[in-house]
Amino acid sequence: MMTSEEEIVFHPQRLTRVSEWCAERNACFIAVDSFTIRWLTGFTGSNGIMYLDQNCQILFTDSRYAEQAPVEIARHGVDVKCVIGSDPFNRIAELARKRNVHVDGEKCSWSAKETVESLIEGDVIDAHKFCLELRCIKDKSEIEKIRTAAEITCVALDSALAELNSETTEKELARNIESFMIEHGALNAAYPPIVAAGKNSALPHARPSSQRILDTNLLLVDVGANFEGYCSDMTRMIPLSELSKEQEYAFQIVLDAQIKAIESIRPGMRAKEVDEICRDALSDAITGGEFLHGTGHGVGLEIHEYPRINSKSDDILQEGMVVTVEPGIYIEGSYGVRWEDLLLVTGNGVEYLTNYEKRTQVRDSHG
Amino acid sequence: MMTSEEEIVFHPQRLTRVSEWCAERNACFIAVDSFTIRWLTGFTGSNGIMYLDQNCQILFTDSRYAEQAPVEIARHGVDVKCVIGSDPFNRIAELARKRNVHVDGEKCSWSAKETVESLIEGDVIDAHKFCLELRCIKDKSEIEKIRTAAEITCVALDSALAELNSETTEKELARNIESFMIEHGALNAAYPPIVAAGKNSALPHARPSSQRILDTNLLLVDVGANFEGYCSDMTRMIPLSELSKEQEYAFQIVLDAQIKAIESIRPGMRAKEVDEICRDALSDAITGGEFLHGTGHGVGLEIHEYPRINSKSDDILQEGMVVTVEPGIYIEGSYGVRWEDLLLVTGNGVEYLTNYEKRTQVRDSHG
Repeated sequence: MMTSEEEIVFHPQRLTRVSEWCAERNACFIAVDSFTIRWLTGFTGSNGIMYLDQNCQILFTDSRYAEQAPVEIARHGVDVKCVIGSDPFNRIAELARKRNVHVDGEKCSWSAKETVESLIEGDVIDAHKFCLELRCIKDKSEIEKIRTAAEITCVALDSALAELNSETTEKELARNIESFMIEHGALNAAYPPIVAAGKNSALPHARPSSQRILDTNLLLVDVGANFEGYCSDMTRMIPLSELSKEQEYAFQIVLDAQIKAIESIRPGMRAKEVDEICRDALSDAITGGEFLHGTGHGVGLEIHEYPRINSKSDDILQEGMVVTVEPGIYIEGSYGVRWEDLLLVTGNGVEYLTNYEKRTQVRDSHG
Repeated sequence: MMTSEEEIVFHPQRLTRVSEWCAERNACFIAVDSFTIRWLTGFTGSNGIMYLDQNCQILFTDSRYAEQAPVEIARHGVDVKCVIGSDPFNRIAELARKRNVHVDGEKCSWSAKETVESLIEGDVIDAHKFCLELRCIKDKSEIEKIRTAAEITCVALDSALAELNSETTEKELARNIESFMIEHGALNAAYPPIVAAGKNSALPHARPSSQRILDTNLLLVDVGANFEGYCSDMTRMIPLSELSKEQEYAFQIVLDAQIKAIESIRPGMRAKEVDEICRDALSDAITGGEFLHGTGHGVGLEIHEYPRINSKSDDILQEGMVVTVEPGIYIEGSYGVRWEDLLLVTGNGVEYLTNYEKRTQVRDSHG
């Protein structure tokens, strides 16, 4: 049901934005990472480098993609020339002439930078910040894809939990969630699902093990689907049998902190303030356990994108950003609690993209 | 059956090799890519940087991995200090003192290189070649993991093909193959399976579509499993109903070229010679169609590793390397043929790691 494959979309404005940026600087830009190249051109291949300036857009890739690349570029509704197999760096140097070449310094390898530098007369300049900001405000088609990815995740989690039995291991549940995602139109999971039962939940990035889930009393599930390249990201705690008073309290206070942080979000706000609100709410409520990671991050073609919501972030939240809010506490050797939702920043707050129940007590079996 | 999870292995010799290399140069080495870090330390996290010199080995990672990293390092049988959360670059600079720092220039970002360079008195030196060679000869435990990954792939392909019916699409078959892999002990697929029926096979890197497989007369399947981090890689052509004379001929001559190339392999041989033998055998036999990619590549923790088997390669094949041989021809808009096996280079030739039948004619339904 939830597929929109083969739909033609038109994204020339993305290229225009980079072209205009180049024109302002009388410079050129090269995109070296597959996510930015996909965003600009629709090309999904694993090998490519893209040259842009004010007049010219060229994708360089290899012969494996000779048929695929032009088809994907046409489907993206953009006018990008596709050059197969020739050495991109010499060609880029010819095109750049005496101008500077901007590139994302965190995505460009040191070797590639040295090669470009040796061939051009201008300088190679780090455009990391520009690259981060380029994709941070999602357009309508991107939001719809992320929303679909989130919907698929919720349906898949429901279906997989419905089949849970006394033998089901963390690994099996992880696999079943992914299978259901694909069945409902996802390309695959956006990242390897974290399915951590009982004390395994104390590891923020636990890998699914052979632990039988129903031999424990609680479950942490951190899952997301990839729908047409776009990711979703959600974490739920699932009470399996009666929680201890301490666990119940932990479930509730992390949830309260999460909701408080989410409700504080406004466009124009500093991301670090959201982190602060979340951290303060937690530290007021607990003494044990540690909050080991940032409060959240942007999500899009990549599972971790700009902005970052943590104590060191200088990023400003803006309408059209898609972010997670995911506080957690981890009690070593015992258990962990994390609640995570995916949110669209709107004109006056947020809209939840993940709509999945949050239980802090075991479901009444007679209910 | 095919899992060996939790087994303790001892790999101190890998660290010793790097330490000795550093001692010879009175230098330090930093590993920045997750595959090399995993190979050295057993650590499987997504974020890490490792410092090594003749006396000291430190893994820097973040607080999410505070519990996991020491456990994985101990299970790898090595003595590596684990530092959580502190700024690695300042610490690396303190440790390096006046010595040069070697790093893989193709894996290290330009930004990271600049940061290290600004902090140390010595130079940052590109150790790309050393890094490539580091992992190219597989030890016994690595060969066993790759062998298991290949066995899982064959079993999964068999199981998925046995369930093929008139409704099955490329996407569904791809998903079923991956599910069977996981059921048989794989972590996941080593790469997104290529399942290309009929004319879709003309795209070397086709993505599975909603094409019903049995509406066509031939199928290309390029699949591999990831078993405990190690990859396998195999391509088979599956005749579904009667092939045209031309198709049958293409199946056979690509297979003949592949076998000729495989049988030529000896330790000490130049990889480019294998490519030449393969290419010559094909060009003698055909006029139409194009051989669009290299003949093969190394496989290990990464699906594409050193050595490369193509016309530009300077690499020498050595005992203990694991490589693919995968010639293909692609007739635009019509069909493609590729046969690919995974091979261990032995003392006097090769051993097949992928053992799966190769049919150039449709199976006799009465047979």
